[in-house]
Amino acid sequence: MNRRDFNSIMIGGLAASVLPRPRLSSQSQSDLRVNGDRINAHLAALSEFGKNPQGGVSRVAYSDADRSARARVMEWMRAAKLEPTIDYAGNIVGRRAGQNASLKPLVFGSHIDSVPSGGNYDGDVGTMSAIEVAQTLAEHGVATRHPIEVAIWQNEEGGLFGSRAVSGQLTAAELKTVSSSGKTVEEGIAFIGGDVAKLGQVKRRKGDIAGYIELHIEQGGKLAANKIDIGVVEGIVGIKRWDVTVTGFANHAGTTPMNERHDALLAASRFVEMVNRVVRSIPGGQVGTVGHIEAFPGAPNVIPGKVTCTLELRDLNDTKIDMMFARIAKEAKAIGGENGTQFAFSLIHVSEAAPSNPRMRAIISDAAKSLGLSSRDMPSGAGHDAQAIAQLAPMGMIFVPSIGGISHSPKEFSRPADITNGANVLLKAVIAADQALT
Amino acid sequence: MNRRDFNSIMIGGLAASVLPRPRLSSQSQSDLRVNGDRINAHLAALSEFGKNPQGGVSRVAYSDADRSARARVMEWMRAAKLEPTIDYAGNIVGRRAGQNASLKPLVFGSHIDSVPSGGNYDGDVGTMSAIEVAQTLAEHGVATRHPIEVAIWQNEEGGLFGSRAVSGQLTAAELKTVSSSGKTVEEGIAFIGGDVAKLGQVKRRKGDIAGYIELHIEQGGKLAANKIDIGVVEGIVGIKRWDVTVTGFANHAGTTPMNERHDALLAASRFVEMVNRVVRSIPGGQVGTVGHIEAFPGAPNVIPGKVTCTLELRDLNDTKIDMMFARIAKEAKAIGGENGTQFAFSLIHVSEAAPSNPRMRAIISDAAKSLGLSSRDMPSGAGHDAQAIAQLAPMGMIFVPSIGGISHSPKEFSRPADITNGANVLLKAVIAADQALT
Repeated sequence: MNRRDFNSIMIGGLAASVLPRPRLSSQSQSDLRVNGDRINAHLAALSEFGKNPQGGVSRVAYSDADRSARARVMEWMRAAKLEPTIDYAGNIVGRRAGQNASLKPLVFGSHIDSVPSGGNYDGDVGTMSAIEVAQTLAEHGVATRHPIEVAIWQNEEGGLFGSRAVSGQLTAAELKTVSSSGKTVEEGIAFIGGDVAKLGQVKRRKGDIAGYIELHIEQGGKLAANKIDIGVVEGIVGIKRWDVTVTGFANHAGTTPMNERHDALLAASRFVEMVNRVVRSIPGGQVGTVGHIEAFPGAPNVIPGKVTCTLELRDLNDTKIDMMFARIAKEAKAIGGENGTQFAFSLIHVSEAAPSNPRMRAIISDAAKSLGLSSRDMPSGAGHDAQAIAQLAPMGMIFVPSIGGISHSPKEFSRPADITNGANVLLKAVIAADQALT
Repeated sequence: MNRRDFNSIMIGGLAASVLPRPRLSSQSQSDLRVNGDRINAHLAALSEFGKNPQGGVSRVAYSDADRSARARVMEWMRAAKLEPTIDYAGNIVGRRAGQNASLKPLVFGSHIDSVPSGGNYDGDVGTMSAIEVAQTLAEHGVATRHPIEVAIWQNEEGGLFGSRAVSGQLTAAELKTVSSSGKTVEEGIAFIGGDVAKLGQVKRRKGDIAGYIELHIEQGGKLAANKIDIGVVEGIVGIKRWDVTVTGFANHAGTTPMNERHDALLAASRFVEMVNRVVRSIPGGQVGTVGHIEAFPGAPNVIPGKVTCTLELRDLNDTKIDMMFARIAKEAKAIGGENGTQFAFSLIHVSEAAPSNPRMRAIISDAAKSLGLSSRDMPSGAGHDAQAIAQLAPMGMIFVPSIGGISHSPKEFSRPADITNGANVLLKAVIAADQALT
């Protein structure tokens, strides 16, 4: 591949004389459908890259499996009449020119990297559907006003590295962090064809993108449980994450009476229970999780003198997160007071809530309706590349049902028919957004 | 050193004609006192072996520091007119013949191995005091009816390996376990001069030892807090230890609503709190501890699907331990029922309660009283070599105060005057037991 930076792709474009013209009437366009069999065949083919014997894939970013899959995906892009390039951040961008060279591109896509021991739907469904939408448009000779770009963001699972390079949120320090592949992000970007020395050129400004739409599996169980076809994402929740340290006093488990202990694990256990209670005590869809815990010294016969754990809070409303944390910190202090232990919190991650664009939400809702599909508005509890691109452009997201709400697991599953529905909604939404957006 | 097995040491003995005769009257014997300065000087000298820059020692069994210290201790034994040998299990036994060659030996001693980053008193106080008692007897020409043996049991901290070899409780499988030194127990025993091939010859039977007395630091804070000089140990608590597994369902922390979670860590936290509550709800000195915990997969953004932790219960009454466990297991099942998680318990360690001998307790109490020292009966919450030897002989234990109850820590401390008091009680108790026991 020739390597071109994202901006030059965007600013460039084919001469208007060679642009395809619309060959379908409005009526015909409303009959337009993706080839669902082809999407699901591509998903099956993609699942071979990094396949695990016990099911699912380990196709972590910057692995051999990731790089091989990316090469295959670029072939599919070419078949869809997209011109794929790799930007300096390592994102794959498949571009097709629009009728109006002065318009900014309409971008849609997702990612194909997985978590370790992940599934075959997270990211893959959105990516394969985006390519399919481009192919459907090409096969039916539908020209768009805007240039279209199918984006495959690199290392979404590690922390939206590719999309945050484009939104300008990626820091130099993050490039030195070690990814799941064992490579640093910097090494990983070089491995997949990027160039960190020129990373600054990848950054886009607000208004550089006409609009962004991402199709993704829900990763929760609400759609499937309620038999709803399509989720119209209200926004991506804000996330704050803390390292929590509980300090007590380690002592001999045999000789220290129960009433003389400063047991850090007892205090940490009351903390876990309290976090659950506080988060559930407020109406709304907020969530709070303690996912990691370790007691020191960690021997069965020593009272833990120190515990480290994590706290994560998510909500569509950043203020609500701060309000919950204030209550949790206050109650933690009281818990510590009960047995002479101290709590300390260190904020390690902040991801601000990213509301979707109301116009995009209406476009997606209407698209679903026009296809006879049921839909409901819902937040995205998971992070997505869409939240980074929402910094730059009107953003919309389409969810398809995840059976049982299982995700980041080999058991992750979305029904082929639901995937095809989602891709058709994406197709309709892209066509509508192309008309609606400037 | 010549290596001799423990039984042959015990059965052997010098001809009566060369035995020392008592040279002190009863009145003079009651004035007999140990040299407290010498004990504390020996403790200071011993603290150089495995000394840590930040204080305390790491003299784990089978380390170079352990072996070097053992060589030094054998020199001190010779100065105390004891004949030190290493038995096949690696225990050091310093023997002096008694007046009556038909009597079994009166054994007293402790250990000199430490935990990693341990202190200078656990084991060391009892060992240095035992040698001092022998030296005091020798210097004052006090002959005993029984042979006396000062025993320095190897690898106490790893699990009473030396004393359990003698009581016949050590299993072949345990020899393959890796000790804190990095060596297997088998390799370690060879390293310090034992011979596992002949380990069976070390085993003694009930009645092979006339009596056993061990002086040790309390390791709890009861004596110091109540300004009591001497603890008369009622027995060594029984211990049961379980591996606990809590099984829930791992899922995405952002997309799984609070009321649809099967959070194994939330259940485990309720378990930790419940264990504390159940143990404290019953009158008595029993203790219960969860010292180790781990959540899987352990990421801040994944609801834990599995938690492993430990449970340890201790009491002087084994039945009480079983009763507490039955309540804990029942309540754990209810906790699991609340959020769809399951608890499983795997018993990994059993150490039966070892009551001390009533006659030995009276001898120790009287010894303290005769010295004008205050004493109280108390359980030992920690395990000791005495519990293994209690299988074979009447056992008594003497505790001296641990300041602040701190143990297994560089901050472990017992006052020199308290140590001297303890050694004097040991001296008087050995003399009294020599008279009282057959």
